[in-house]
Amino acid sequence: MASENMQTLHVELGDRRYPIFIGSDLNPQTLLEPYIKGKQVMIVTNTTIEKLYLQHYVDAVSALGKTVATCVLDDGEKYKDIEHLNLIFDALLEAGFNRDCTVLALGGGVIGDMAGFASACFQRGVYFIQVPTTLLSQVDSSVGGKTGINHPLGKNMIGAFKQPQVVLADMSQLKTLPPRELSAGLAEVIKYALLGDADFLVWLEQNMDGLIAGDATLLAEAVYRSCAHKARIVANDEKEQGERALLNLGHTFGHAIESYLGYGVWLHGEAVATGMVMAADLSCRMGWISDEDLQRTKKIIQRANLPVACPAIPLDEFLAYMSHDKKVLNGQLRLILMKKMGQAVITKDFDVEFMKQAILANQLSA
Amino acid sequence: MASENMQTLHVELGDRRYPIFIGSDLNPQTLLEPYIKGKQVMIVTNTTIEKLYLQHYVDAVSALGKTVATCVLDDGEKYKDIEHLNLIFDALLEAGFNRDCTVLALGGGVIGDMAGFASACFQRGVYFIQVPTTLLSQVDSSVGGKTGINHPLGKNMIGAFKQPQVVLADMSQLKTLPPRELSAGLAEVIKYALLGDADFLVWLEQNMDGLIAGDATLLAEAVYRSCAHKARIVANDEKEQGERALLNLGHTFGHAIESYLGYGVWLHGEAVATGMVMAADLSCRMGWISDEDLQRTKKIIQRANLPVACPAIPLDEFLAYMSHDKKVLNGQLRLILMKKMGQAVITKDFDVEFMKQAILANQLSA
Repeated sequence: MASENMQTLHVELGDRRYPIFIGSDLNPQTLLEPYIKGKQVMIVTNTTIEKLYLQHYVDAVSALGKTVATCVLDDGEKYKDIEHLNLIFDALLEAGFNRDCTVLALGGGVIGDMAGFASACFQRGVYFIQVPTTLLSQVDSSVGGKTGINHPLGKNMIGAFKQPQVVLADMSQLKTLPPRELSAGLAEVIKYALLGDADFLVWLEQNMDGLIAGDATLLAEAVYRSCAHKARIVANDEKEQGERALLNLGHTFGHAIESYLGYGVWLHGEAVATGMVMAADLSCRMGWISDEDLQRTKKIIQRANLPVACPAIPLDEFLAYMSHDKKVLNGQLRLILMKKMGQAVITKDFDVEFMKQAILANQLSA
Repeated sequence: MASENMQTLHVELGDRRYPIFIGSDLNPQTLLEPYIKGKQVMIVTNTTIEKLYLQHYVDAVSALGKTVATCVLDDGEKYKDIEHLNLIFDALLEAGFNRDCTVLALGGGVIGDMAGFASACFQRGVYFIQVPTTLLSQVDSSVGGKTGINHPLGKNMIGAFKQPQVVLADMSQLKTLPPRELSAGLAEVIKYALLGDADFLVWLEQNMDGLIAGDATLLAEAVYRSCAHKARIVANDEKEQGERALLNLGHTFGHAIESYLGYGVWLHGEAVATGMVMAADLSCRMGWISDEDLQRTKKIIQRANLPVACPAIPLDEFLAYMSHDKKVLNGQLRLILMKKMGQAVITKDFDVEFMKQAILANQLSA
């Protein structure tokens, strides 16, 4: 039985078109049934989500007559590595699963990335279903098909493009999400407003208090609008040849912060938040947005309880980490900057000195 | 400067169409130039090929003005694992390579599978070029896009479909190939005759002595005809939903032999050779081919200096290894068998007792 208030968004990717169901108290048995092709389902989750929701999904999938196995990984970005990926392969092979099986990711972005990548590689590709349990993964990982793992020399350096059969985004599961992680998810929501939708930015300014308080109806609306933006961009540019790079607003700076601090010290959304401030600051120095726009950007980020400055990081190290980022093409750094509020561009035409100033201006004193 | 006798075969895969250049003393600088897109080339090879041909390719690619880095792996199927795959990622990241780089596989099937899989996953996909240096990899791995690594519980269980930009198959490099490996390559050549081309079988019967002696013109013709067969099948069925499974003639039995003996004890082609005998034997017991056809199959395999029987393997273990093979769909074993000489079929309609007899009849006494 579908929730009364459930919204459905279709990601248009030709023969890999799939739906995202967004609502509260969704019924996984009914919603997943048409999308599980074979008889075997491997549910991949982490030790935190295992205690909260694993049995609910094991029961739902078992009730469909499927063989269910589970793989529970350690919880955290620092485990998004090749060794933990291999544990999923071990579980699939020990369960005797075949080319017709489904891997279901039950968790946040780390679980989605790892389970998705495993589903892309196991037997050269099996089916994949996503049940994102954090706001960040609901708005970010459930559209786009990017999966992968980290390497000691860089984030998400190893991976695949893999589209799911279906995504369930259940707002009820956000009740158990720590406030810090809810804020981290809001960073990506704000990103969609800043990069392409000035009206959405106004909506966020009107509703930020309710979002922070966990209002399920407001959160569902924020997830729907964010996913709709991403779905439109991804449909135009699935393999990130062009427009899709806009989604990396704040990410090149953010990756440098995350890499320097060590994966998992700051949440991804927190690093992206400060990264967006740096991008806005550079855009302001370039004369593309006003100082008022920069302050407005900082304000909405602060109201989401997100950091607008990072710890002091030596500039040379910050720049070295930025150049390891994937958004580097043939050694020429391209950044996502703001031409105006609600309109980002991909550009290498910026002043490098201004970039350094923007980085230093948004660090805490050492 | 292209060799006078060079033949070119195009693998028709729409926007992923690519050429295979087949000949002797090919000029890599001229032939590769149009197919290297970015500025960085990682040549992946093994310790054996490193001594013979690495410098030649480093020089050729450097002469094109590219940045060249190398990654030399241990030589052997037993190293086709996740740890050695990770060494390629280490090399790519330590060299600071970006999304626009090319991974060039210089070696046999193991190097092609690992370098190809690494190119599919590094930064979610970079460019890939193949220079297969064994007969087996020239006829088998250079068409089809199957890449991957082994897992302790099964061969090629983790991988991706990844098409190269171009393949260079140089017969001159077969002069340094050990005779046992030349024979292993001929197993796959014979496979194409048995599964789909009775005329090619006659040609092989006429020319087997010259092939075994390493005649470059005959070898080039055998590679061309084998690749043409495979290219036609793959173009029809890239992701192995149907017809492509025919290419696995002998492989389900062969995988069981390889798995039981331990990877690398028998060469892949040797296991496939005996596997094809078992498939022919079962086809004969089913009444589809005559006893004369079975003897003819064994004869051409023996003339290629390949084994027609494997060591004694307990039947239950043999069957357990067969069922780990990927050709198992929802627990129902499908085999590639011969409906007549030069015509294979994918079927689960065979007598299981006959299958057991065919396995046992082609084992050496314990």
